[in-house]
Amino acid sequence: MIYADYNGSAPLLPSVREYLKKRIDSDLFANPNAIHSMGQKVMKGLERCREIISSVMGCYPDQVIFNSGSSEGISHIVFSVLENAPAERRIILSSPQEHVVMPSVFNSYCERRGFTLVLAEIDEHGRVKIDQLREYLEKNGSKVALISIMAANNETGVIQPFEEIAKLANAQKIDYLCDTTQLIGKGRFHFENSGVSFAVCSGHKVGALPGTGFIMARDPQKLSSLVYGSSQEKGLRGGTQNYLGIETLAVALKDFQDHEAGLDTLKSARLNFEAQIKNQFPKAVVIAEKAERLAGTTLLGYPGLHGQAVQIELESQDIFVTTSAACSDNQPETSQILRAMGVDDQIGRSVIRISLSYSHGEKDYALLASALVSAYNKLGKIHSF
Amino acid sequence: MIYADYNGSAPLLPSVREYLKKRIDSDLFANPNAIHSMGQKVMKGLERCREIISSVMGCYPDQVIFNSGSSEGISHIVFSVLENAPAERRIILSSPQEHVVMPSVFNSYCERRGFTLVLAEIDEHGRVKIDQLREYLEKNGSKVALISIMAANNETGVIQPFEEIAKLANAQKIDYLCDTTQLIGKGRFHFENSGVSFAVCSGHKVGALPGTGFIMARDPQKLSSLVYGSSQEKGLRGGTQNYLGIETLAVALKDFQDHEAGLDTLKSARLNFEAQIKNQFPKAVVIAEKAERLAGTTLLGYPGLHGQAVQIELESQDIFVTTSAACSDNQPETSQILRAMGVDDQIGRSVIRISLSYSHGEKDYALLASALVSAYNKLGKIHSF
Repeated sequence: MIYADYNGSAPLLPSVREYLKKRIDSDLFANPNAIHSMGQKVMKGLERCREIISSVMGCYPDQVIFNSGSSEGISHIVFSVLENAPAERRIILSSPQEHVVMPSVFNSYCERRGFTLVLAEIDEHGRVKIDQLREYLEKNGSKVALISIMAANNETGVIQPFEEIAKLANAQKIDYLCDTTQLIGKGRFHFENSGVSFAVCSGHKVGALPGTGFIMARDPQKLSSLVYGSSQEKGLRGGTQNYLGIETLAVALKDFQDHEAGLDTLKSARLNFEAQIKNQFPKAVVIAEKAERLAGTTLLGYPGLHGQAVQIELESQDIFVTTSAACSDNQPETSQILRAMGVDDQIGRSVIRISLSYSHGEKDYALLASALVSAYNKLGKIHSF
Repeated sequence: MIYADYNGSAPLLPSVREYLKKRIDSDLFANPNAIHSMGQKVMKGLERCREIISSVMGCYPDQVIFNSGSSEGISHIVFSVLENAPAERRIILSSPQEHVVMPSVFNSYCERRGFTLVLAEIDEHGRVKIDQLREYLEKNGSKVALISIMAANNETGVIQPFEEIAKLANAQKIDYLCDTTQLIGKGRFHFENSGVSFAVCSGHKVGALPGTGFIMARDPQKLSSLVYGSSQEKGLRGGTQNYLGIETLAVALKDFQDHEAGLDTLKSARLNFEAQIKNQFPKAVVIAEKAERLAGTTLLGYPGLHGQAVQIELESQDIFVTTSAACSDNQPETSQILRAMGVDDQIGRSVIRISLSYSHGEKDYALLASALVSAYNKLGKIHSF
């Protein structure tokens, strides 16, 4: 079995499983805010986790605010920035390839609070057009309340020029929310060096327990309450802290740090795999081939095939990938991101996304290649599309 | 060791630990929204959990919306009701004994959106004065946007007349948010029979994983987005579902249902314990003694002693209780709830809260009694207060 949907969700890491099995057998379960020593021990563990996580992420412990994951983190940050934006800053600057939570929350603010959403263009390599963005900001920067452009795209794996965007944002004192959900645990990221105002992490993307995550905030005091409570997370996020989840976040991110070199092995194996497939199937298309991408992400098209057919064929060989296509009533469509990149429907409808982690390498890609060759050969004969 | 702080947070139930240990060894980790069969299996499990939970709770599956716990649930419900309240309904009707999340979120709405917070009085038994509430609503019901009165109090354990309040609310078409966080898993609750509009549950209060929970909504369409996302939870709560957490919620609530009779054993053992303490220490005061309380909650005072001293003394005997007093700079104060009940400071500052679960009985209370007798005897001599 090869699970190749790490961009969708990562299985619990082996180190997290080991940790949890021992942890579950302990008796240390208590409200971290309790007055007794069990509560205090839980709280001490939680704060130790915050230190580990901040050290891996390149930020200060008090810049880490634990929550339930990136959708909450993004909703919280957008709420905080937009509700407190000065009247002259009414533009939200984003891109057409953000995670669906972005258009969803932005549209709500446009409708309810009179903001205007402006989308930066992306080029054929899936990267935000930074020069165009610079020009736009030179003219309109003083009207922009929030920039929201992700660090790495979930479908294509393309790394965005987020450090350059941060410089532009900082020069004009614009808050920059960088959705780092796909980058953290799959690529190198250093919060302070990045220059972004806000970043987010989801535990289930890094092999920790689902339902966990955190915000990193350059200035945490810019956050208003979204989930109310008492003094938890310094009053910035109410609710009894998910201490077990937080502990697994620390284990997972420490695991990543200890095995970061695996990213290079992964990248090299992935490039070989892509070359092999293109060699055997000259028509095959690696989306955003020339862009810097996440080490383990390949979005692969084969004109005329149906992505879901390839996915199902691979599944029959116990290999789990996904399509990037948003399906509606089983009518496959080219995803919005690929449309924004100018990918045509023949390819757009045919793509599958293969996403692996830093624990994978040549062996896994060899199995994937062999399965994919057989799938393409089989489906190529049927002309399923 | 006796952990007697179940109202603060419950340890993972033994059945949840067993479940988790097996579950962690499985390979079934995937995004429940993924197109492949692993994702679909995870989703099927999640929906089965929703059915189990709704069956235990007495509601329909589509009335259950999973989230990260009660603080989020309450914030979400209050946001949804108040942001959509008609202009003529500007009163929030609550009580002085709600969980701190309530005044925190209500004050924000009073400041930002012009609502007025009205607090119902509570009597010396810790119960909301229902006749006064009825009178108030007869005169002002048409101006009330939301009633928020809890089901069972976290400090005193007193069960509130929530079914009667629900009747009053429904008669005037007022949304009634009943904070059921302390009642669920510690007492009998049936959502449909209760008549309330909204109820909430936190996993860590019922022996499931922390960071889990759900809203029960009579009409889920009344919920607006607080945490944005795509179609998860029918668009009512964004973010990849915390499927492992949800599975433990189902295990925990099923466990409760299977052992509900334990509540009667617990109650009877608790009453014997209280009688024994009062017999040996005639000055000891069981707060809200005459009210219907959670089966395993005792808030116990001893005039002249210092609650935290009793707590520490018990901890030296490996028994973990808490005080109900909000501490500031180590200056113990009578809690707001006790002040609202008219409890004087001599007693208010002396209280400890003992809270157990349906798995406990005579044996645990015998150990508690013995430890408490020795603590009271010791501290009574020192006159610590």
